[in-house]
Amino acid sequence: MTGKFTLLGREGKARRGRFHTAHGSVETPVFMNVGTNAAIKGALSADDLRDIDCQVELSNTYHLHLRPGDELIRDIGGLHRFMNWDRPILTDSGGFQVFSLASLRKISEEGVQFNSHIDGRRIFMGPEESMRIQSNLGSDIAMAFDECVKIPSPYEYVRESCLRTARWLSRCKAALTEFNSAPDAVNPGQMLWGINQGTIFHDLRIEHMQRIAELDLPGYAIGGLAVGETTQEMYDTIEALEPYMPGDRPRYLMGVGTPGNIIECTARGVDFFDCVMPARNGRHGHLFTWDGIINIKNEKYSRSDEPIDPVCGCPVCRNYSKAYLRHLFKAEEMLAMRFSVMHNLWFYNHLLQRIRTAIDDGSFEAFRRRYSTLLDTRI
Amino acid sequence: MTGKFTLLGREGKARRGRFHTAHGSVETPVFMNVGTNAAIKGALSADDLRDIDCQVELSNTYHLHLRPGDELIRDIGGLHRFMNWDRPILTDSGGFQVFSLASLRKISEEGVQFNSHIDGRRIFMGPEESMRIQSNLGSDIAMAFDECVKIPSPYEYVRESCLRTARWLSRCKAALTEFNSAPDAVNPGQMLWGINQGTIFHDLRIEHMQRIAELDLPGYAIGGLAVGETTQEMYDTIEALEPYMPGDRPRYLMGVGTPGNIIECTARGVDFFDCVMPARNGRHGHLFTWDGIINIKNEKYSRSDEPIDPVCGCPVCRNYSKAYLRHLFKAEEMLAMRFSVMHNLWFYNHLLQRIRTAIDDGSFEAFRRRYSTLLDTRI
Repeated sequence: MTGKFTLLGREGKARRGRFHTAHGSVETPVFMNVGTNAAIKGALSADDLRDIDCQVELSNTYHLHLRPGDELIRDIGGLHRFMNWDRPILTDSGGFQVFSLASLRKISEEGVQFNSHIDGRRIFMGPEESMRIQSNLGSDIAMAFDECVKIPSPYEYVRESCLRTARWLSRCKAALTEFNSAPDAVNPGQMLWGINQGTIFHDLRIEHMQRIAELDLPGYAIGGLAVGETTQEMYDTIEALEPYMPGDRPRYLMGVGTPGNIIECTARGVDFFDCVMPARNGRHGHLFTWDGIINIKNEKYSRSDEPIDPVCGCPVCRNYSKAYLRHLFKAEEMLAMRFSVMHNLWFYNHLLQRIRTAIDDGSFEAFRRRYSTLLDTRI
Repeated sequence: MTGKFTLLGREGKARRGRFHTAHGSVETPVFMNVGTNAAIKGALSADDLRDIDCQVELSNTYHLHLRPGDELIRDIGGLHRFMNWDRPILTDSGGFQVFSLASLRKISEEGVQFNSHIDGRRIFMGPEESMRIQSNLGSDIAMAFDECVKIPSPYEYVRESCLRTARWLSRCKAALTEFNSAPDAVNPGQMLWGINQGTIFHDLRIEHMQRIAELDLPGYAIGGLAVGETTQEMYDTIEALEPYMPGDRPRYLMGVGTPGNIIECTARGVDFFDCVMPARNGRHGHLFTWDGIINIKNEKYSRSDEPIDPVCGCPVCRNYSKAYLRHLFKAEEMLAMRFSVMHNLWFYNHLLQRIRTAIDDGSFEAFRRRYSTLLDTRI
């Protein structure tokens, strides 16, 4: 069953599905909760993730390779055991971080030479290295090693980069197949997903998608968006690309986005999402509610014994007032971070749950009209 | 029943008791978990406190008066509701913080003028003010407003200060009686405990104790120790004082101490303890175990898939390895703090549980011989 994607229903281009991994199945559309260093920002533990109904945890290959080292994690039994999380894990390939965090990058056909952002150490990563690291981590979904091209970039550069990323993908597939067949593979059910690139050049996106679809992978991601283009350009690119994405495979829009973005991209046929926004905004006191975004540090909440959101069922809203949470921020208590991140991640996980229910019920378009703008509004 | 202390047993001077409050009973000897700002350091929530078997939470009058303000907490229903903790709460009087944190103090018979350490605001606090604040907070045990005299101080100054602290105690008692009888009292079952002072002058300690014992309060604390004297001087002072403390009332040694200190002071007749040490040490990676204190940041733990302490049943030891916790510290993840504080507070709460069981079993002296030095040793 691992790798199987079942389409349970659709409304317009919005899809309701179920995806099977070696650590259980995932109901889609789904939001994946980001734990870069095998830990969620804001002092959330794996137990907290279960409490907020997280389906998939996402960790970062680049970060874990640098620290504590993927071989150490392999020796301890893999990422699931290391962080005490027994549900699905997706690892990115490290490509995005190599191109956003590391310095003195040198790209060749083989891969990328770069300096660690932690200690400046010279490191080489190519398709085989990324796959070996992800194999050591033992995630359920390993992402392809790709070049994440910045926007804007010259057409000719993007075209060449896409061709190289496609060649890298073939090497990723060969490498992971080999690692999975090793007798001591941490997670022999680990699968590879391809990543589409091409910035906002629709023809390059489509051409690249057609090329990587030939590899018949169990899932495909749209990478390199939400990195500088306008929201409309992002939506237009997804709309142009979507007909060329295999209809029977899950589609993952990497690093996106606001609640409104997620609703709009679900409407454009996307199934998997991830974003640091709920955690990052939470740490600054910006909290999502079904009426819009509030800033809990606002003076007007100082005496409110109401929860953050009266319709929210998260562990924070069930037990604590806005006045208490605001106090924790003012007193610079770490608990402020934890409660805010917990609430925001719950909000995202349950936003996706409501999206799934709406597609099941055939009410997704009504849901979209009601919430697509509202949820991104600061109130 | 509120205020009643039942002596269940003893071994030597060590006492096994049960103390009744408006929010349930407390098994003694007990360690109270410090939540200065109505929150435990390290992002622990009230739910976490329940998970680590905390019996009594301790909050700080001085801090909460300054921020968010005790009237705000009263309006929300009191500290129990504010922080979602339905078991006993003890609040200190603010005296210790006024004498350790605030600046430009001016002491008079009425009380103390000082500058807030947060915004420099000029504030006056005397016995009545401290009682009004604690009444607004609605804790179960309110501590007397006292002067915490530094060690060393001149004999004559300490004597005068003790006399004034005794006069302040009478005013505390009158004030709290009045506040408790108000129809809108947050916690009409709130009780006052006296605080003994006198630095390490045994005669002043005893004289002061005799004076405040006359007020017939439901509990008495030993204040002003562990502020600069040697450990032996502290033990000697407690030994000299103990025969003069009412035998049928609980005794609380404020701000003490290491596991060894707690065992030794239990052996000298103390029932209540509190200390920031488990939380503070935890935040620096110093973790208590039944074999001594380890530094989790040590390189030798980088590949250990063992828990912090194999005999510990805390939520961290049950689920996570030393390698993971060390990684969290190295990656500067907030979760490192939370796990360390959680483990150390569990250790303290269960140290006291084992002390209680040992007194019940008549094996406390054996327990003391085995652990009194061992637990404070860095390994």
